Amino acid sequence: MSFLYKSEPERGAVWARLFAERMPDMDFRIWPDVGDPSAVQYLAAWEPPENLAETFPNLELVFSVGAGVDQFDFSRIPREVPVVRMIESGLVAGMVEYATLAVLAAHRDWLSYAAQQRDEVWRPIKAHTAGSRRVGVLGLGVLGQAVLAKLQGFGFRCAGWSRSAHELPTIETYAGEAGLDAFLARTDILVCLLPLTEATRGILSKALFDRLAPGAVLVNVGRGGHLVEQDLLDALDSGRLSAAILDVFDTEPLPAGHPFWRHPRIMVTPHIASMTQAESSAEAVLENLRRHRAGLPLIGQVDRSRGY
Amino acid sequence: MSFLYKSEPERGAVWARLFAERMPDMDFRIWPDVGDPSAVQYLAAWEPPENLAETFPNLELVFSVGAGVDQFDFSRIPREVPVVRMIESGLVAGMVEYATLAVLAAHRDWLSYAAQQRDEVWRPIKAHTAGSRRVGVLGLGVLGQAVLAKLQGFGFRCAGWSRSAHELPTIETYAGEAGLDAFLARTDILVCLLPLTEATRGILSKALFDRLAPGAVLVNVGRGGHLVEQDLLDALDSGRLSAAILDVFDTEPLPAGHPFWRHPRIMVTPHIASMTQAESSAEAVLENLRRHRAGLPLIGQVDRSRGY
Repeated sequence: MSFLYKSEPERGAVWARLFAERMPDMDFRIWPDVGDPSAVQYLAAWEPPENLAETFPNLELVFSVGAGVDQFDFSRIPREVPVVRMIESGLVAGMVEYATLAVLAAHRDWLSYAAQQRDEVWRPIKAHTAGSRRVGVLGLGVLGQAVLAKLQGFGFRCAGWSRSAHELPTIETYAGEAGLDAFLARTDILVCLLPLTEATRGILSKALFDRLAPGAVLVNVGRGGHLVEQDLLDALDSGRLSAAILDVFDTEPLPAGHPFWRHPRIMVTPHIASMTQAESSAEAVLENLRRHRAGLPLIGQVDRSRGY
Repeated sequence: MSFLYKSEPERGAVWARLFAERMPDMDFRIWPDVGDPSAVQYLAAWEPPENLAETFPNLELVFSVGAGVDQFDFSRIPREVPVVRMIESGLVAGMVEYATLAVLAAHRDWLSYAAQQRDEVWRPIKAHTAGSRRVGVLGLGVLGQAVLAKLQGFGFRCAGWSRSAHELPTIETYAGEAGLDAFLARTDILVCLLPLTEATRGILSKALFDRLAPGAVLVNVGRGGHLVEQDLLDALDSGRLSAAILDVFDTEPLPAGHPFWRHPRIMVTPHIASMTQAESSAEAVLENLRRHRAGLPLIGQVDRSRGY
């Protein structure tokens, strides 16, 4: 019985140490040191190896090392093998930091102040209280809920939207296509934390921007595939949106010469909003292995029909 | 009996409305409509008028409309007239927002990412967890304590320093010259929220920077007079400090051509970290007037021997 890790080696070394301590009966292996392929029951990867089913006939579980699974080709993973997204405290904490930073930067006009600084212009911009600022989060998974909880602590007027209905004790929620209009109309700062699926690809488009509060700010920490890039450029040029803070892109690294790089109303960061943390992610995987052995439901198991 | 308001007129109109509702027996007047000078018992101002003692012989209290009183010439305010700083929820909330934004920006390398964006460079910078980042706040008044409480909620390792000893239930505190060395040595991100007094003028100097953790980031939301500007430029050039986020300056507006404007490791904002909010500041002043009438201690009364 072995666990095969195929991802970033520095994190793999931390996992190896924690597996040895917490689950010493597990033969933990780091790709490409596969050992006996027929002994591999568990695989953790960003992208699974080729010929997965043929190479590892006794595979029981596949773990994504990232929060998303949109990089997986599900047709290559046997249907009976459950796939598990990464839900771990370090990844959540990093996303809460980045989303809070981006929303506060939007709220306090930091892109405008940075532009004024380049021009040596001293001009205070009329400030708004957090209580008059409406933040909306697309996606009410573990990340979206954690981000909303933190933002609410600053007094922002917070709401969340998701495809299927979610009831949250202290957050106003909207659901489905029917709820999207009202959600967007009340949103000044929009944070995208959706999974990338066929239903959400290209959702950040002209049709959506036109339904937001005028002059809204977009924060995309989902996936580049959510955004129609030309529609964003048009919305910024027309003033329909006032700024965008983007961490993810259709093509990564963002190519040299791409118009986002030099746009004065766009902040670009190189897909760093949140990273899977070595120790806390190992703990999360060990917990799911214990659950699997005990026949309990797995945390973050993907519903293939929804794609997340 | 009248209350004379000498400051920003838009806020004055809000105060006038709230005074009429909550304290209808008070004759609320907006400068220069002074009325009978001998009836003026209360004055709220950023800078008091000339010849204060002679013009208003029955003055009982002076309110600063800002959090600081360093702009006051105390020699012109009769010794027996108490002076009250502005402590109000809107001002606190704004400062918590700005300080959190600045600390998160420092923590998540936003100045570096902005510089990389200008050069069209896609290069993730090794991230640190909040738990490994040591934030230190100079000044443990209402603002410093509120900022520390919020930052602690992100998991930062927080500590505060003040001239006189403060015991806080959940924050590590240091006091006086004796505690400054240890406080600075453990600080990666330093936030200045001190009052400006003769004891704190020029405190952000080479001598202080050299005692911080190497590569520390400075956030100055105190007063421009706290900072020795050339020492900051030298510390950034030598790498002793890695970045600075500055909202206040010796000369405001920051003059055209000043080296801070174009420095790639400095973020400049035009003294907007926090503003006295019209409604909440009126409430705070009304509360202090009720206390004054009832003979209770005033909230924010200045100790002239300390200068704050």
